[in-house]
Amino acid sequence: VQGARAVGLDIGGTKLAGGLVAADGTVLHRHRLATPATDTEQVLETITEMVSTLQSVAGDRTLPVGIGAAGIIGLDGTVRYAPNIAWVDYPLRELLEKRVGGPVLVDNDANVAAWGEYSCGAGRAARSSMAMLTVGTGVGGGLVDRGALVRGASGFGAELGHLIVIEGGPPCPCGNRGCLEAVASGNAIGRAATEALAAGAVPTDSSLHGLETITGKTVTAAAQAGDTCAIELVAGVGFWLGVGIASVVNALDPEMVVIGGGGMNAGELLLGPARVAAQERILGGGPAGRDMPPVVAATLGDDAGVVGAALLALAAVGSRR
Amino acid sequence: VQGARAVGLDIGGTKLAGGLVAADGTVLHRHRLATPATDTEQVLETITEMVSTLQSVAGDRTLPVGIGAAGIIGLDGTVRYAPNIAWVDYPLRELLEKRVGGPVLVDNDANVAAWGEYSCGAGRAARSSMAMLTVGTGVGGGLVDRGALVRGASGFGAELGHLIVIEGGPPCPCGNRGCLEAVASGNAIGRAATEALAAGAVPTDSSLHGLETITGKTVTAAAQAGDTCAIELVAGVGFWLGVGIASVVNALDPEMVVIGGGGMNAGELLLGPARVAAQERILGGGPAGRDMPPVVAATLGDDAGVVGAALLALAAVGSRR
Repeated sequence: VQGARAVGLDIGGTKLAGGLVAADGTVLHRHRLATPATDTEQVLETITEMVSTLQSVAGDRTLPVGIGAAGIIGLDGTVRYAPNIAWVDYPLRELLEKRVGGPVLVDNDANVAAWGEYSCGAGRAARSSMAMLTVGTGVGGGLVDRGALVRGASGFGAELGHLIVIEGGPPCPCGNRGCLEAVASGNAIGRAATEALAAGAVPTDSSLHGLETITGKTVTAAAQAGDTCAIELVAGVGFWLGVGIASVVNALDPEMVVIGGGGMNAGELLLGPARVAAQERILGGGPAGRDMPPVVAATLGDDAGVVGAALLALAAVGSRR
Repeated sequence: VQGARAVGLDIGGTKLAGGLVAADGTVLHRHRLATPATDTEQVLETITEMVSTLQSVAGDRTLPVGIGAAGIIGLDGTVRYAPNIAWVDYPLRELLEKRVGGPVLVDNDANVAAWGEYSCGAGRAARSSMAMLTVGTGVGGGLVDRGALVRGASGFGAELGHLIVIEGGPPCPCGNRGCLEAVASGNAIGRAATEALAAGAVPTDSSLHGLETITGKTVTAAAQAGDTCAIELVAGVGFWLGVGIASVVNALDPEMVVIGGGGMNAGELLLGPARVAAQERILGGGPAGRDMPPVVAATLGDDAGVVGAALLALAAVGSRR
């Protein structure tokens, strides 16, 4: 649709990012607000306000609206539960459609980010399939197969961060143990550093000793600054990311694997070891066998969710017509 | 297509099963031959002979032919490699189409079995999605999403037996370690019993001491006969099957999980513990969360591959028209 636009929102635990997005994925206007995570009424009001603002900017109060939110989200846009906001069986789509003009679509944050990267980011070259892992506080997943998102029977699909890669392993925020998220997230980088420090395994000349707080972010920054120990810790988490990638490739054979999220600030320090571990583990890998699909960095950065949500909303409107 | 029929073949390492199959999945005629696994020329001749025989029975030399074979099989019907037959980049579909009448389709054995179960077996009640795991010597996988098999970008998709569930775990025939196949196959049942015997962990009154050979089959038979130790060993492998099921459910959210293959002779002794382990591990499981999809036994038995291959071939002809 030439000239078509939509509103896209990415609802995080701390901030709400929104954008007015053109059909080619260009973000025409950006808006950002803090998420009032304590109160679901206030969250709904803030979302409504942001949608209205962006629709006003567009001069069209009926523009389609796409929402990406962390959580388990049903096909009907009901949030079964969310890690950051007190939503339990919360009919977000329905409530929002009563408050704003235009059709509303709600999907998981990693799903919409994957759709963004597939449509106009790192996955643009893929003909019809792509897997995405977002490495942030946790690990999110999105899958495109046969040109569309794999949402599953209930909409809970593509939770690739909860592939179990080391049964009985470190605890995962989901309550399980050994999920990919438990070993390959930004938090896992921070935890690995904390453990190394506690075990006295960090050389005295490492800059890690001087950090005020030990988090995935600060350790990644130290690695980028050349700290050998931090580089090793990031590589260790990259290894686990590669184990997860191998599982995804064996199960789904995507044309391409895209890695996004804040953890990708580590760039090749994370991706390099991930590629090696994945290549060694795919079925039929090695010289005589199949090729490993490309494992590449996401290119849309913080816009992936906003762009993907908006484009999904546009596509949904298109398919209804 | 009323009255439509197709030929289906299931090519195993030791036997070749074939059938003339009606569009509703009824097997009208069965044929069985030994697989001459040593020589690829002879295998091709035997396959050709079986197809010809079944087409003759049908009185139609142009019936569509569907083939299911263990191995990594490209979208064009080329076998990249197979575990039991010396096929390497072997253009099975192309070679066969030169020798027999009718269009030929070649796919992975677990994929066609999954299609059989989805079309007219245990997955019949599923509207549009289903995951299947076949527990035999190894563990095969098949996925249906949005009403069609997930074949992936190259056709290598749905190798769910090579989801890595315990990184660094027991060796898998694929060369990797800790794959689902390494811990949840019939072979894993036999290995668990061998290890328990070697460790002196099998009570003296267990019938396992009297077995001539320790294999998945004999241990499963002992479990079915009520041997407590054998029951525990089968349950231990069922646990791992459940870990794999949880990964599949988290990644793909199928409506239903179907378990087939020879290992299912153990029935609920395997499935019961698998269900418990899976339920405990799915994202958002538990009283307040999402429901676990049904995990059920396959119903087509040895016919699943033959029926699925034939119906896939019929569907392919239909979509070409």
